[in-house]
Amino acid sequence: MDDFRDIGFAKLDMNRTDRTGQSETVFGPGKTPEQLAAILETFRRAGTRVLATKCSPEQAAEVAARGIPATYDPVSRLTRADWGEKPILKGTIAVCTGGTADIPVAEEAAGTAEFFGAAVERHYDVGVAGLHRLLSKVESLRRADAVIAVAGMEGALGSVIAGLVKAPVVAVPTSVGYGASLAGLAPLLAMLNSCAEGLSVVNIDNGFGAAVSACRMLRIAERRQA
Amino acid sequence: MDDFRDIGFAKLDMNRTDRTGQSETVFGPGKTPEQLAAILETFRRAGTRVLATKCSPEQAAEVAARGIPATYDPVSRLTRADWGEKPILKGTIAVCTGGTADIPVAEEAAGTAEFFGAAVERHYDVGVAGLHRLLSKVESLRRADAVIAVAGMEGALGSVIAGLVKAPVVAVPTSVGYGASLAGLAPLLAMLNSCAEGLSVVNIDNGFGAAVSACRMLRIAERRQA
Amino acid sequence: MDDFRDIGFAKLDMNRTDRTGQSETVFGPGKTPEQLAAILETFRRAGTRVLATKCSPEQAAEVAARGIPATYDPVSRLTRADWGEKPILKGTIAVCTGGTADIPVAEEAAGTAEFFGAAVERHYDVGVAGLHRLLSKVESLRRADAVIAVAGMEGALGSVIAGLVKAPVVAVPTSVGYGASLAGLAPLLAMLNSCAEGLSVVNIDNGFGAAVSACRMLRIAERRQA
Amino acid sequence: MDDFRDIGFAKLDMNRTDRTGQSETVFGPGKTPEQLAAILETFRRAGTRVLATKCSPEQAAEVAARGIPATYDPVSRLTRADWGEKPILKGTIAVCTGGTADIPVAEEAAGTAEFFGAAVERHYDVGVAGLHRLLSKVESLRRADAVIAVAGMEGALGSVIAGLVKAPVVAVPTSVGYGASLAGLAPLLAMLNSCAEGLSVVNIDNGFGAAVSACRMLRIAERRQA
Amino acid sequence: MDDFRDIGFAKLDMNRTDRTGQSETVFGPGKTPEQLAAILETFRRAGTRVLATKCSPEQAAEVAARGIPATYDPVSRLTRADWGEKPILKGTIAVCTGGTADIPVAEEAAGTAEFFGAAVERHYDVGVAGLHRLLSKVESLRRADAVIAVAGMEGALGSVIAGLVKAPVVAVPTSVGYGASLAGLAPLLAMLNSCAEGLSVVNIDNGFGAAVSACRMLRIAERRQA
Amino acid sequence: MDDFRDIGFAKLDMNRTDRTGQSETVFGPGKTPEQLAAILETFRRAGTRVLATKCSPEQAAEVAARGIPATYDPVSRLTRADWGEKPILKGTIAVCTGGTADIPVAEEAAGTAEFFGAAVERHYDVGVAGLHRLLSKVESLRRADAVIAVAGMEGALGSVIAGLVKAPVVAVPTSVGYGASLAGLAPLLAMLNSCAEGLSVVNIDNGFGAAVSACRMLRIAERRQA
Amino acid sequence: MDDFRDIGFAKLDMNRTDRTGQSETVFGPGKTPEQLAAILETFRRAGTRVLATKCSPEQAAEVAARGIPATYDPVSRLTRADWGEKPILKGTIAVCTGGTADIPVAEEAAGTAEFFGAAVERHYDVGVAGLHRLLSKVESLRRADAVIAVAGMEGALGSVIAGLVKAPVVAVPTSVGYGASLAGLAPLLAMLNSCAEGLSVVNIDNGFGAAVSACRMLRIAERRQA
Amino acid sequence: MDDFRDIGFAKLDMNRTDRTGQSETVFGPGKTPEQLAAILETFRRAGTRVLATKCSPEQAAEVAARGIPATYDPVSRLTRADWGEKPILKGTIAVCTGGTADIPVAEEAAGTAEFFGAAVERHYDVGVAGLHRLLSKVESLRRADAVIAVAGMEGALGSVIAGLVKAPVVAVPTSVGYGASLAGLAPLLAMLNSCAEGLSVVNIDNGFGAAVSACRMLRIAERRQA
Repeated sequence: MDDFRDIGFAKLDMNRTDRTGQSETVFGPGKTPEQLAAILETFRRAGTRVLATKCSPEQAAEVAARGIPATYDPVSRLTRADWGEKPILKGTIAVCTGGTADIPVAEEAAGTAEFFGAAVERHYDVGVAGLHRLLSKVESLRRADAVIAVAGMEGALGSVIAGLVKAPVVAVPTSVGYGASLAGLAPLLAMLNSCAEGLSVVNIDNGFGAAVSACRMLRIAERRQA
Repeated sequence: MDDFRDIGFAKLDMNRTDRTGQSETVFGPGKTPEQLAAILETFRRAGTRVLATKCSPEQAAEVAARGIPATYDPVSRLTRADWGEKPILKGTIAVCTGGTADIPVAEEAAGTAEFFGAAVERHYDVGVAGLHRLLSKVESLRRADAVIAVAGMEGALGSVIAGLVKAPVVAVPTSVGYGASLAGLAPLLAMLNSCAEGLSVVNIDNGFGAAVSACRMLRIAERRQA
Repeated sequence: MDDFRDIGFAKLDMNRTDRTGQSETVFGPGKTPEQLAAILETFRRAGTRVLATKCSPEQAAEVAARGIPATYDPVSRLTRADWGEKPILKGTIAVCTGGTADIPVAEEAAGTAEFFGAAVERHYDVGVAGLHRLLSKVESLRRADAVIAVAGMEGALGSVIAGLVKAPVVAVPTSVGYGASLAGLAPLLAMLNSCAEGLSVVNIDNGFGAAVSACRMLRIAERRQA
Repeated sequence: MDDFRDIGFAKLDMNRTDRTGQSETVFGPGKTPEQLAAILETFRRAGTRVLATKCSPEQAAEVAARGIPATYDPVSRLTRADWGEKPILKGTIAVCTGGTADIPVAEEAAGTAEFFGAAVERHYDVGVAGLHRLLSKVESLRRADAVIAVAGMEGALGSVIAGLVKAPVVAVPTSVGYGASLAGLAPLLAMLNSCAEGLSVVNIDNGFGAAVSACRMLRIAERRQA
Repeated sequence: MDDFRDIGFAKLDMNRTDRTGQSETVFGPGKTPEQLAAILETFRRAGTRVLATKCSPEQAAEVAARGIPATYDPVSRLTRADWGEKPILKGTIAVCTGGTADIPVAEEAAGTAEFFGAAVERHYDVGVAGLHRLLSKVESLRRADAVIAVAGMEGALGSVIAGLVKAPVVAVPTSVGYGASLAGLAPLLAMLNSCAEGLSVVNIDNGFGAAVSACRMLRIAERRQA
Repeated sequence: MDDFRDIGFAKLDMNRTDRTGQSETVFGPGKTPEQLAAILETFRRAGTRVLATKCSPEQAAEVAARGIPATYDPVSRLTRADWGEKPILKGTIAVCTGGTADIPVAEEAAGTAEFFGAAVERHYDVGVAGLHRLLSKVESLRRADAVIAVAGMEGALGSVIAGLVKAPVVAVPTSVGYGASLAGLAPLLAMLNSCAEGLSVVNIDNGFGAAVSACRMLRIAERRQA
Repeated sequence: MDDFRDIGFAKLDMNRTDRTGQSETVFGPGKTPEQLAAILETFRRAGTRVLATKCSPEQAAEVAARGIPATYDPVSRLTRADWGEKPILKGTIAVCTGGTADIPVAEEAAGTAEFFGAAVERHYDVGVAGLHRLLSKVESLRRADAVIAVAGMEGALGSVIAGLVKAPVVAVPTSVGYGASLAGLAPLLAMLNSCAEGLSVVNIDNGFGAAVSACRMLRIAERRQA
Repeated sequence: MDDFRDIGFAKLDMNRTDRTGQSETVFGPGKTPEQLAAILETFRRAGTRVLATKCSPEQAAEVAARGIPATYDPVSRLTRADWGEKPILKGTIAVCTGGTADIPVAEEAAGTAEFFGAAVERHYDVGVAGLHRLLSKVESLRRADAVIAVAGMEGALGSVIAGLVKAPVVAVPTSVGYGASLAGLAPLLAMLNSCAEGLSVVNIDNGFGAAVSACRMLRIAERRQA
């Protein structure tokens, strides 16, 4: 059951869907454009959908140059190779940002969740410095099954949302900020120390990871019904 | 709807259940035994169940001395004031530890989850240095709806589990270790950088927070069915 | 004009009021009880009011044993030697805390401000995890001339308040928390990175410093009218 | 009263002046030139003055290309969109720097304060290594209503000034320095640990934040007289 | 016996082989292309084999331009000047990586070990998120005399391997990752805190150092037999 | 083959010797005296030798009180339960310290190596500030098969030794020092950045880990001969 | 010439005076009272003066109990074993502190310098928050041959002094402070980043090291005249 | 006596020689080429020698373009404006480096010391990994009046030298290294924690500061003779 394909520089997991309930994904950074393209090619031959994250334009160009039918979004830096059957995941994930500059990370989260079949509702630039912007969205947020809170600077968005909703909140610190933001450590620490409950945290700028966690949460209901 | 009781040194949230789906909880540290007892007393009068975390023996003694019918567990340091109707939450949460020294944090997680009505399955001392111990539990882990992975030292337990199961994994770093463990920062960083997907992280030694997040995940299914 | 009294282990500033507009203050830690008492004695002879901060019970006991008419408050750990003429400072300072455990630091701020003649309004346990508690105080906060926001954990209180009022906000991070709170570094960093404007920050647990800054702000108006 | 305009990637606060006493401001970094220009355009249509900070030349060029009548200063990197009625704020803010290399941050502070209507007095290159330079300015500093002390390296300027004047001092650490300056952490920590009173601190290189805080201080007097 | 050649900017160790059992090596960074070429030239004249690490393409080009018969590998960034008699070291070193992006560091290790005469077996992309990939290699790993485990992100590979084999394991953290990876500090700390025994650690990205340590281990057997 | 005994709070590895070539060991901290004694008892029944590290006097007292025939050394804090057949490991490990205060960590290393059958040669207080002390030991060091260099403060001992011998050197930073030693981080970082080759590093104060690594190195020769 | 006495746990440097120009010194922490006493005893037999630093009262009591004629000062924690001929070192060292709480570190410096024969002038509590206190001492400071500036908190004292005198300044950061002082890291970093010239720095609380450096400076003149 | 020239962006210290015994120096970074040239021009008009440090080629080009007769050395990045009378300082300063890559920092030190009149002896690439290189220089080092030890990586050079000579040693950590060198923090911490006496430390890569301190040390003898 635990089978993989060995292409030298990579051992490709061909049945991750069976094991973890989700298609294979590929971490873009540190791979040459050729390596990334070869990986996608291997999955295409197997008919396995695959999502590549944090891809550079050079990687995307190589993929396109080889005629691999994947789409690249320069904001989220996601490459979606969507040739298999698109899954459907019941439930809605709300993706919020503190500011405009957090949008690329939020789009990584939103795009990932959509790739895995979830419905996504976006609420951008609702940071705590202008609380009325967030409060105007509370009813909508309370309807979501899971919330992803993306924020840099002081990273307070997750705490405030977790105190307002019943759903689990995944907080994503971003590297938006400067000086004592320490490239995202400040919001990361803030989120880990939240005085609100129901919050868990992923790595700085890791919109992808937040979305995978949220999708696994949505799948709890499906598995129980199955 | 957003009502609270003001007792001077604290503003008690009397309808958190309506807003966040869960009973009130109290963070023990930094409160005098008298303050903690007064808070529990106020909730008792309102008939609201309440859980206090990281309580000292002195706090527990004061609560007992006032005749407040709460139970104190010295391993998890939880004080459970269980006078209201006990909730039932469908689904099972697996709580795992890397080693024996991680058990107090794991018990905080397990006790919290049980307080909020979830079923808990414990797998202790299954760290990655002796992989066969963990592998012998895989079938059981795959049946859980959510997994809480508690580990100090290098904190690899969460990554390995997240690669083996479909459920969301909440990783709890612990302060178990010494030297370059930096009081738990080493496993915290490791967990945030997991090469596995589906993992989110809470503060060092925060078994409570992991359990609340996991319970919110279980509630997704309930709310959808309601 | 810049005169001081040399008592060997300390050079006492006898005309700080002229230079900085405020009575002399003494930092308690690192001084023996005898040294602290000798310092207070010197100021008493000169008829100069003096405030000592972060005093231990041992220091307070020595001061009392020598018959020096100063009061000691064990919560704020302030020793107030109030023999001179009490100043009056026009204006109100609001002192808020995120939780109950932040109260000792808040009382250091409040007691200091009162010592220097300001009116103080206390709003304790109004942290952002239960936003309605804070929102119920907004009108009162908007009337204050300066706000001191005292919070540990993720330290979001200052940001939220600064977005709601016109007054300057001085944020005080506290060492309340554990694990990744890093003894108060997490809220300190959060406050420094606030997405809200009008916030400035003092050292961890430095309620005293926040109060002195706020009092200097109130004095701007007085000086202009003089 | 708490109204905002939603332009997708941003929720613009249209009545911040009513709520916080100050015009809207925009944080430049992380916004595309198009986004920044669109935001300014929206405010122009509403007739609301707006200040954008830390703008890149590319952002400024896009604003100019669209014919938006805003001025850009490459030293302070401020974009001032000054179409509304210019406010007048009574009082003077002194802006000091330790060295020549701190001037861009100081100009961000000075330009911001002037945008909000304050009078500014500049004292540049008065660092503590040549104390006579600072001492020659003491009389002038003592007349200011608030002082902004901008310094990198060891960041001692704020402490020395706060011991010489009655006004509140806002200290701005800068990233000027190298090695153990840790990109400004060294002066930040020094300022937070000042042995002088009356000092509060903002983020590294955050001249803007210091100026907004200082302007709020000046407004205390105005509001009381109103 | 302890002789060296002084060429001004460098003192070249001409008999390191006698003293430490291994040819001279040169650390490339911080040397001008001219300096590096002059060093290689000096060793060539003495007939001493030498390995230069972390060389830039510019350094390699200068070496080639001078006709020095050394080979440069752009992946490992090793320059091998192999003119002397090639040593033979009995035993096999297994070099493993967590992911594809760790390969350059692994190749630095593998190339170094081969330069010093060891046999190398490569197992790339066998990280713990897909444990079956690693488990499929266990028999091969158990035959190796020493194992080098190269991993970024959470750095768990070394712990898992050290629990599976009898050989000493040298762990090499890499700077592969982002955000809270802190440029490799996260896996470094994880490896230092390994719950498994038999693991020792070298600097981030220091494949070279791991290989030299492993070769010294292999030489223990040779020296005893000699 | 991978069998373990489950005693609730611990899963005891009963055949680690087969898998990793070495007896089971137990990490003392975080275990109650009762837990530690129960673990030793279980191994005694199985006739398996076991070594417990960093044991407190309270743990040792409980073990003694139960009549378990293990010896406790208060300097190294090792508990040796030596009931099985004592292994013999060919080769000598030299254990050196920079100063007298490093001896407890060195004794943990030496005692561990002896428990696993190696011969140990001790060279204590040979730090680099008085180089002649170390140089007087060079011949002896050059005869060792592996060297363990234990040092706090600036941690230079390992670098100097690694430049003098052919054997692999395992460096152990200690928490001896104060201030900027950062509880051992300073020598840890120094050792990781050694300009000498052939050095690998273990956690601060981890004499045990260094010894296990060194013993695995000695076993390379044995296995090849077997 | 490089001779030492080996007493097992220590290798005592018996001719350090010849090599480094100064008597032997012993670092107290980490040595048992018995070890410290044995070391002093050995030097006494050799007639060698010796200074032990950072000694605990327990160590001092053991030394006294054995009848070793050494004096112990509980403020500086120095044990001076002054049996040899007292050296005389021409020149004066000024020792200054920022505050009263820095005095123990300053006394360690002053006592060490006096032990090695230098004249010491003390200026305590002359921190930069009340500049007139320091300025009143400038003439005296300008006469000193070397200055030791001891300060915690923001550590600005050294910078200000180095800008006022021609002598070399050795700055000693202290752990006086709290919160973001990070146990002395804040003044350490400040001192390393001084904008003044002529300043060098020793470890936090290392008054001893500063004094030894200053004494070596005074000896330059003596050696040249010899 | 304390006079300066105000040129707007800088307040130039025109009589630093009288006050601190040394010509004015200028910190290059953060100044525009125009600002640097204007500063040099001002000093030229006053006939004051001046040294500018860490200058970029752009700054040097502007200085040359204006015909200012200063020399620029691209290795040390010093600009020497040597128009006044060259001072002579009796005594020799030895400047040593651990490796070749440390030479630029060492040349900054050597060039600065020569500018101020000292004789300099250079010993480059004498790091502790090949101790015989350093030991071959001991006699020469023992003749120097002060030693500057420049080293990156583990920074052990200063400790070893300070144990071999009687002169004061100023240690300069460099940013040479990678990974856990943390851009020079590792050698900085090592040097601060030296087990040798007589060592003081300056900022990372601060060859200039080390030289100024060493020159002040040499001047002690001159002043006493004057």
